[in-house]
Amino acid sequence: MQASVAPVTITALEGIPLVQPGDDVAGLLIAALKNAGLIPQPQDILVVAQKIVSKAEDRYVELASVEPSPRAIELAAVTRKDPRLIEAILSQSAAVIRAKPGVIIVETSHGYVMANAGIDQSNLDPGSAQARVLLLPEDPDRSAQKIKHAIDANFSTDIGVIVSDSVGRAWRLGTIGLALGAAGVPSLLDRRGEADLAGRRLEVTEVGFADAVAAAAVLVMGEAAEGRPAALVRGLAWGNAPVKPAAALVRPKTEDLFR
Amino acid sequence: MQASVAPVTITALEGIPLVQPGDDVAGLLIAALKNAGLIPQPQDILVVAQKIVSKAEDRYVELASVEPSPRAIELAAVTRKDPRLIEAILSQSAAVIRAKPGVIIVETSHGYVMANAGIDQSNLDPGSAQARVLLLPEDPDRSAQKIKHAIDANFSTDIGVIVSDSVGRAWRLGTIGLALGAAGVPSLLDRRGEADLAGRRLEVTEVGFADAVAAAAVLVMGEAAEGRPAALVRGLAWGNAPVKPAAALVRPKTEDLFR
Repeated sequence: MQASVAPVTITALEGIPLVQPGDDVAGLLIAALKNAGLIPQPQDILVVAQKIVSKAEDRYVELASVEPSPRAIELAAVTRKDPRLIEAILSQSAAVIRAKPGVIIVETSHGYVMANAGIDQSNLDPGSAQARVLLLPEDPDRSAQKIKHAIDANFSTDIGVIVSDSVGRAWRLGTIGLALGAAGVPSLLDRRGEADLAGRRLEVTEVGFADAVAAAAVLVMGEAAEGRPAALVRGLAWGNAPVKPAAALVRPKTEDLFR
Repeated sequence: MQASVAPVTITALEGIPLVQPGDDVAGLLIAALKNAGLIPQPQDILVVAQKIVSKAEDRYVELASVEPSPRAIELAAVTRKDPRLIEAILSQSAAVIRAKPGVIIVETSHGYVMANAGIDQSNLDPGSAQARVLLLPEDPDRSAQKIKHAIDANFSTDIGVIVSDSVGRAWRLGTIGLALGAAGVPSLLDRRGEADLAGRRLEVTEVGFADAVAAAAVLVMGEAAEGRPAALVRGLAWGNAPVKPAAALVRPKTEDLFR
């Protein structure tokens, strides 16, 4: 007897070409979905790697064009990093949280506490070498919204879109996927109204829904040579829970114990 | 033309009864798997909620039996929590990391930085009310190993098992699943040998694999009245990557910037 509920499925999208500045990411995703025979349905969630969004939005910075400030030069000495990279990091930051040899952790302008302001130098196109870095999208929630609108219009549906990144953690080794941006999903899902098995109210049940979905999808998305910068997550229904952007996941500074 | 790879599936296990001290959790999981028509295959991962493991291992503490130490009384005043609960937390802790009104964050004896040492008072059986709390398993990796051995023996297979918990994060709102214990999986997956799309070596590619799998599975596992304390994750192959316990995910203290 089959007693299980329908499984959640996570399907990596293959065959998405290397993205160039100005490319239509939503169009590439629509083609990849159709090629995979995946017709998006309401409450499907398409998770898209930050890297292709940033490339399409031309968030490249040529290091040769960067003039490091005195503050960047000082932090470069502390962290033993390129002063121009530090300047690029500072340009994306609201505050420096920690700086040690090999490490700079900042609060980005989005309010995210991240190493290197989420800037990386890996997986850039051949030929770019060390000469340029790629910033995070300026407004990842808006990027997700734009992709959602294009896909919803094409398929006459109402999906969720998450722009994901892979990030480190303060007390755990290994990177994990995180929702930088989101549209059409309850990024922070409030379950505090539900009763537990004993009939009492649950104490703490705000769920970091979009972060968990990003963590799941990034498991099947290639970080390296596979070239799978997106995945479709199907089967996570959230009923009428209110949609919230990824910005809702930022813990207010007044509650921050680790600054 | 279908160009997608096979999807990863996550199937919640239904019909697992309320667990009592001394119960055979592996036996309950085997029955639930069979009832769902799910025959575990090599490199399937069964994610099991910490709560049912702790209950079966009788990790209950009756608060009436707890004598708070002077240190617990002091921290109870700071945090405005029950001194007996604080004493139970301290009994599971190697160090107190932060204590503020309403919050106590410790390093557990496993090395995990967690609020309340992972102790909670929700979802306890009817009748237990406020009188007792449930500690984490003493050795979650060993708990996972025991479950794995029983399931492998029953189905003549070689699966992964993760004991999951839902935890808060320092800078993000909402809880997310995390791997407290693991057996038969590469909890920390080293991808540093792989080349990126540009043919260069990846810079930082240790993946928090078991944490991400736990985050994914917890999305389908009921925290509340649904009673779905386990899920089977299928399709995440890791080839010959070395198996590591969840203990491998603990960042060494020498690298901790936020203590």
